[in-house]
Amino acid sequence: MQLTSVIRRAAQVNPKGMATVYKGRQQTWHEFVERVAKLGGALQKLGMKNGDRVAMLALNSDRYLEYFFGVLWGGGVIVPMNLRWSAAENAYSINDSGIEIMLVDENFAAMVPAIQENSECLKTLVFAGEGEIPPGMEDYEKILGASKPIGDANRSGEELAGIYYTGGTTGFPKGVMLSHRSLYVSNLSSCREFCMPDGARYLHAAPMFHLADGAASLAVTFAGGTHIMIPSFTPEGALEAIQEHKPTNVLLVPTMIQMLIQHPDFEKYDTSSLTTIMYGASAISEAMLVEAMTKLPHTKFVQAYGQTELSPVATILPPEYHVTEGPNAGKLRSAGKAVGTCELKIVDEDGNDVPTGTVGHVTVKGPITMLGYWNKPEQTAEALQDGWVYTGDGGYLDEDGFLFIADRMKDMIVSGGENVYSAEVEQAVTKHPAVAECATIGIPHEKWGESVHSIVILKPGETATEEGIIKHCHDLIAGYKCPRSIEFRTEPMPLSAAGKVLKKDLRAPYWVGKERNVN
Amino acid sequence: MQLTSVIRRAAQVNPKGMATVYKGRQQTWHEFVERVAKLGGALQKLGMKNGDRVAMLALNSDRYLEYFFGVLWGGGVIVPMNLRWSAAENAYSINDSGIEIMLVDENFAAMVPAIQENSECLKTLVFAGEGEIPPGMEDYEKILGASKPIGDANRSGEELAGIYYTGGTTGFPKGVMLSHRSLYVSNLSSCREFCMPDGARYLHAAPMFHLADGAASLAVTFAGGTHIMIPSFTPEGALEAIQEHKPTNVLLVPTMIQMLIQHPDFEKYDTSSLTTIMYGASAISEAMLVEAMTKLPHTKFVQAYGQTELSPVATILPPEYHVTEGPNAGKLRSAGKAVGTCELKIVDEDGNDVPTGTVGHVTVKGPITMLGYWNKPEQTAEALQDGWVYTGDGGYLDEDGFLFIADRMKDMIVSGGENVYSAEVEQAVTKHPAVAECATIGIPHEKWGESVHSIVILKPGETATEEGIIKHCHDLIAGYKCPRSIEFRTEPMPLSAAGKVLKKDLRAPYWVGKERNVN
Repeated sequence: MQLTSVIRRAAQVNPKGMATVYKGRQQTWHEFVERVAKLGGALQKLGMKNGDRVAMLALNSDRYLEYFFGVLWGGGVIVPMNLRWSAAENAYSINDSGIEIMLVDENFAAMVPAIQENSECLKTLVFAGEGEIPPGMEDYEKILGASKPIGDANRSGEELAGIYYTGGTTGFPKGVMLSHRSLYVSNLSSCREFCMPDGARYLHAAPMFHLADGAASLAVTFAGGTHIMIPSFTPEGALEAIQEHKPTNVLLVPTMIQMLIQHPDFEKYDTSSLTTIMYGASAISEAMLVEAMTKLPHTKFVQAYGQTELSPVATILPPEYHVTEGPNAGKLRSAGKAVGTCELKIVDEDGNDVPTGTVGHVTVKGPITMLGYWNKPEQTAEALQDGWVYTGDGGYLDEDGFLFIADRMKDMIVSGGENVYSAEVEQAVTKHPAVAECATIGIPHEKWGESVHSIVILKPGETATEEGIIKHCHDLIAGYKCPRSIEFRTEPMPLSAAGKVLKKDLRAPYWVGKERNVN
Repeated sequence: MQLTSVIRRAAQVNPKGMATVYKGRQQTWHEFVERVAKLGGALQKLGMKNGDRVAMLALNSDRYLEYFFGVLWGGGVIVPMNLRWSAAENAYSINDSGIEIMLVDENFAAMVPAIQENSECLKTLVFAGEGEIPPGMEDYEKILGASKPIGDANRSGEELAGIYYTGGTTGFPKGVMLSHRSLYVSNLSSCREFCMPDGARYLHAAPMFHLADGAASLAVTFAGGTHIMIPSFTPEGALEAIQEHKPTNVLLVPTMIQMLIQHPDFEKYDTSSLTTIMYGASAISEAMLVEAMTKLPHTKFVQAYGQTELSPVATILPPEYHVTEGPNAGKLRSAGKAVGTCELKIVDEDGNDVPTGTVGHVTVKGPITMLGYWNKPEQTAEALQDGWVYTGDGGYLDEDGFLFIADRMKDMIVSGGENVYSAEVEQAVTKHPAVAECATIGIPHEKWGESVHSIVILKPGETATEEGIIKHCHDLIAGYKCPRSIEFRTEPMPLSAAGKVLKKDLRAPYWVGKERNVN
């Protein structure tokens, strides 16, 4: 199982098709393979040896895809840098994984000095952006032009292919080690689950550094398809790219879908090429789905749930369950069913299976699991037990085998000895007609340990009272699950790069000087 | 990558669906997993240890699928016996792989004494058929009933899962060793390539001992679907099963498709459930395709090419190329394009790539390749070089990346120093209006080494002369490729179990006492 074999095969089965389309540039798969083989050689000349980690800190572009495969072709390991992180955080991951070579574009070149200041190992910078080459940096096109295409280093199987740093919504960044095997198998499977036709056209609108988009990248490569990139998501940019380049598939988070379909000029664009929208990070609300399906009548929706540790897809909610009526209705809030490449178990604190319908820890086993966390044997032992990845999510399976995520285990609220899952509270609160968004956290309470606290953003022009929302919840869920306090917020929720609400940031002001008791 | 994980996942995602439907019996996936875990235990009680080979000699049934997974669950290795083989041939493969336990049904129980006479190792027979238990055999249901469900032996990855004996169209039987990895990856991929929907219903009409059907078995299990079995193919049996059990997918060889659609009662049956027919072993003629598409207007066709050594699929001709007009026409005689899990190269005698359009040796690399031949290091070294499987087939790639098989390398005719590929000759001959079938071989010739000889079956009621057919060919292909002699035959061509014409049998009478010079 060799990730680079997939691009050679794409060149064979789609010799006339384009590999990448970015701004004014495009290239065939044959040209792409040639450039990848040159980049592998250029990186080796810069000192990259077998298994060496190479970073990239850049917005989306065709070169990001060349970086993925060029590093692997030359025997290296990719470490895509999180674009939301500060220089200090990026320096941490560079030092942690011992990176000597980093590619950077014009959007992040200014951050480089601050990273270098904090880094012990970073030696070589390659400027892969547009415009003037900053001093002290190698010119991407120049080193590529000076290199001959080299033979594939032939890393494969259990060998390390990428390290993806995940701090995500909780704790200290950890480098998730993914093998050629896990990425290969996961994306071979996703090619079917994401409804990618042969020769699919995929729009990179989500950030390529994140594995959610990275996974779709590989799936569309298995389909021998075409990669279309925009530097980063804006509703206008995405709509223009859809109209001009006619992608069939795109991966978005629900917030992006909302921004797209609610854009005032949405109707002016031709979006009929889109056959499938994959989305993840959070469930889609019934109201938004109905709106999206009305505005995109030819488009199917697929939800994916997973995490970096699972390369990343664990469950899929297929298109036929994106309905509000009929025998398939009622699954929209679920994360779907286990994909073919994974076994899924819900376990209690002792690791035993819990009954159907009971919330427990979501665990996953299969060829899609990570090798472990880079240099973190303790955290690895905790997350990866007997081949099972402990996701850190609480959830339950219904009698049809659908997974419902109740909460991050660490976001679960323990109030008066009862477990309260924030997702359930949030669903109740957002059913209030005036509420646009809600995030629910546990805040310290002397008697109960934690008390249920909901942070609410109202719809424009709407009003509501704390009392009114709490009363509304009492009609829908058990009393101990109802918020005891409501906080009205006007600015957007803090989001991770994957589009998840950063509850630790929401919780932080309440817990200053106090220790939260989490497993 | 563990084959048994796929049935546990099927039970989770399709808890109410049926795993198997056979005659009067059916069982859910939960019941199936339970019986598999019991069979694993029962086989261990009979002495099966980790890695032990266990055979089955039987027509298709639900128990055949239980055998596949029960042996693997208990830690064993499956060795499905070729139903076309004589007792001596079956004894050979039993001795070669050291089989102690064999399952047998009522159709093959009578062959057992003759096998035992020639076998050194066979100790235990389990009767998995219908009717009275023959003396000296264990009762399948009884040993299963007496066993508790055991835990999975957890073999996976590179560990041996099955040995498939292939003598096929050439030479001495060889035991192809397939790992959990190769079967898992190949069938995960086939699930998409074979257009298997979630919850697909698959009809086992082709023999389950053969990996062509075995592969579809695993692909439909990845889809969490339902296995419907008929003991063996008859057009009436298949039509009745299609009408009654409504399969969505079926794998057939072209001869079977022909028997089905040309059956006098075809129109009386409801065949509308069939969304996809996969076929292999040989290309489908344009005339037959048009007839099949007319009679099965809701059915797509997918051709697969491969061999046991490739677990087994290497290339696929997708539905959109099953057309006689439009931009996708002209590919029907091809074997399609490399599947996502394989790289495909056409090489000359020195192992170098040949140019597009040039015939060479078809070689394949990827996670779908065999581990090697059981106990045959020399043949393994010949067939598996630097990770590439040498298929033994001659073929070329066109400029769109489609593979055209010219010939088995061993069936290629060398006449006066020129290579003649029998497929090309056969296509020319069968374009003669009176010709139903043609097989072309090389026969000894003093001057040219070999001369081109075609064996022809005429259509009922038609007549033709040797001279007329040869003249017809001269209008279509180069002179040196035209048959020098024609033999008219009235009985059917000798076929392998996979439906391929056994050219070595056709050649044999001409080469008595002479040595054929093949690479």
